[in-house]
Amino acid sequence: MLFTLTAHDKETKARAGTLTTDHGLIQTPIFMPVGTAGTVKAVHQREIRDDIQAQIILGNTYHLYLRPGLQTLEQAGGLHRFNGWDKPILTDSGGYQVYSLSGTRKIVEEGVKFKSHIDGSTHFFSPENVMDIQRTIGADIIMAFDECTPYPCEYNYARKSMDMTHRWLQRCCDRFDATESKYGYEQNLFPIVQGSTYKDLRVKSAETIASFNRAGNAIGGLSVGEPAEMMYEMTELVCDILPADKPRYLMGVGTPANILENIALGVDMFDCVLPTRNARNGMLFTTQGIINIRNEKWKNDFSPIDETLGGYASTFYSKAYLRHLVHSGEMLGAQISSVHNLTFYLWLVKQARKQILAGTFRTWKDKMVKDLMVRL
Amino acid sequence: MLFTLTAHDKETKARAGTLTTDHGLIQTPIFMPVGTAGTVKAVHQREIRDDIQAQIILGNTYHLYLRPGLQTLEQAGGLHRFNGWDKPILTDSGGYQVYSLSGTRKIVEEGVKFKSHIDGSTHFFSPENVMDIQRTIGADIIMAFDECTPYPCEYNYARKSMDMTHRWLQRCCDRFDATESKYGYEQNLFPIVQGSTYKDLRVKSAETIASFNRAGNAIGGLSVGEPAEMMYEMTELVCDILPADKPRYLMGVGTPANILENIALGVDMFDCVLPTRNARNGMLFTTQGIINIRNEKWKNDFSPIDETLGGYASTFYSKAYLRHLVHSGEMLGAQISSVHNLTFYLWLVKQARKQILAGTFRTWKDKMVKDLMVRL
Repeated sequence: MLFTLTAHDKETKARAGTLTTDHGLIQTPIFMPVGTAGTVKAVHQREIRDDIQAQIILGNTYHLYLRPGLQTLEQAGGLHRFNGWDKPILTDSGGYQVYSLSGTRKIVEEGVKFKSHIDGSTHFFSPENVMDIQRTIGADIIMAFDECTPYPCEYNYARKSMDMTHRWLQRCCDRFDATESKYGYEQNLFPIVQGSTYKDLRVKSAETIASFNRAGNAIGGLSVGEPAEMMYEMTELVCDILPADKPRYLMGVGTPANILENIALGVDMFDCVLPTRNARNGMLFTTQGIINIRNEKWKNDFSPIDETLGGYASTFYSKAYLRHLVHSGEMLGAQISSVHNLTFYLWLVKQARKQILAGTFRTWKDKMVKDLMVRL
Repeated sequence: MLFTLTAHDKETKARAGTLTTDHGLIQTPIFMPVGTAGTVKAVHQREIRDDIQAQIILGNTYHLYLRPGLQTLEQAGGLHRFNGWDKPILTDSGGYQVYSLSGTRKIVEEGVKFKSHIDGSTHFFSPENVMDIQRTIGADIIMAFDECTPYPCEYNYARKSMDMTHRWLQRCCDRFDATESKYGYEQNLFPIVQGSTYKDLRVKSAETIASFNRAGNAIGGLSVGEPAEMMYEMTELVCDILPADKPRYLMGVGTPANILENIALGVDMFDCVLPTRNARNGMLFTTQGIINIRNEKWKNDFSPIDETLGGYASTFYSKAYLRHLVHSGEMLGAQISSVHNLTFYLWLVKQARKQILAGTFRTWKDKMVKDLMVRL
């Protein structure tokens, strides 16, 4: 996997690059729509490609392992063949879901025992089998198995957890390097920086992760409830340590403002359920600001959802019609809102890239952060 | 509204025609997808047009009157402008929903008092205001306000109800003829034959309805639980009386077999929630037969849903992937199934038309009725 940097912003640490995978190019900075169970919720595959113009999507190892299961995924020839998305895919390690969704889970040095949220059955994830599982799912980028600490988190717990995450990383790398891609294309392993909100831990973790010298690096354990300023402080600290010639992926972030601020600190890749989850609740991100489409205000507003943005969903349907659908509990409401919000997120990172290439990122970013968070 | 007949089948009473409205042509026999609340559930407007290739869709007066309401629809410039569907629309009269959805309703000569299923508020539908409401919604074809009797139904109730429906029809026509289209295009009123499953009542009702000499005629009160053979008997009886040079619309019917058999009896237009409702439950109609996509059988079947059919949803996605989505409760499962089933229904009537034009309808129909109802 090749990562080339095309431009560095002079006033910030933002950069524009290109990541080359066997399933195609990814132009960074990039936002990756989340396709938890092999589907970006409420969005057709051709809408992801043609309307949203996503360049890479996520899958969740925890969900895919439980359903449809590895046997089906392997028989299909991997997730790309299973869901028909032939561009790059990244899978998380399943750790985050084990901690957040599974009713009971027990973390020990060997790995994590957990119960399925679907049928209560017992399962075990270890650094080794999570590598095997992701090999079988067949993502282009696979994530190391880590523990994602909550916020707030006791210093001692954060330190011990981080140390275990580092030991797990060694086991992940050993297993990953001892195995091969199942479907003939290259897979790449990204390790994850942890350390909660403690500077010394983040520094130590970033140095450790960097020393593994993998194709790219991720920052985990942020956007879990801490103040945005604290997140930015950690991101900046970590980005300054992670190798400049590798892509940096900030996991689970965030609002449009979060994304722009973190791009300014040197992050290249983002994912978040916010655009799709909020879409299903009637909250829209637009080039003019944030809309709660349920509000009376939009009842007779027959203007397009966001004409500036372009794309079918955002320009064909009116705010009044979308409001009606959402109030009526119609699926099409969630469908339109989801396509729209993701179109907006992809538009946002594309604009950021343009501004970086043009050398105008800083001024543009400062204005956008204010404009985009206005509640209309 | 012009209706021209192009072909009559020699061996059955099937016919192929063209209905010309101000929003475009409709080639009959035709199936009309149901867009209850101004949306064909789970389907984008461009999918209805490009993938399903629908020529006309339905809206429900009861639902649209309650939500978004007439003030919004009128401000939008009618339903076509509101939901962005610029081909023909037909609205029912709201009667059926008042009887089936509203908790309490009271039918008197003047009309029907009912409570909204949304907020319990009290409303009144009369032949007159239902004409006004449909004028405001702006459908190309609007339906007379009738009482749809249940099955089974006492003879005396059916007779009295039918007589009232006929008196209501006179009031509908008077009001319709005394008012004008609100948006500059022509609207047409279809009266509805009632009479439950009683031959003498059906004959009387068909004669009465025919005597009103409107642009088209509908058959209501069937497919409400009676045996299929009884439905066909009533349809044939009524079709033989209704004028041959006007389109005949059989309301709320039905399965693929029901549609083919009724085409053979002289019906030109159909609507039914079956393809979309069943889609949401994982039941698919295909050119090979009926599929319950939840079944284990499809777990590792990576073949397209229905290659013969064509269209994005039916050929792009595999059965195994769709099964996974439905099992996972993912919206995309309902989306794919809905587009697929409607694509099938529109394919079915298009094939029927081709066979009528080719003079091969009877043989084809008899084979299809068997083949399509096979459970795979």
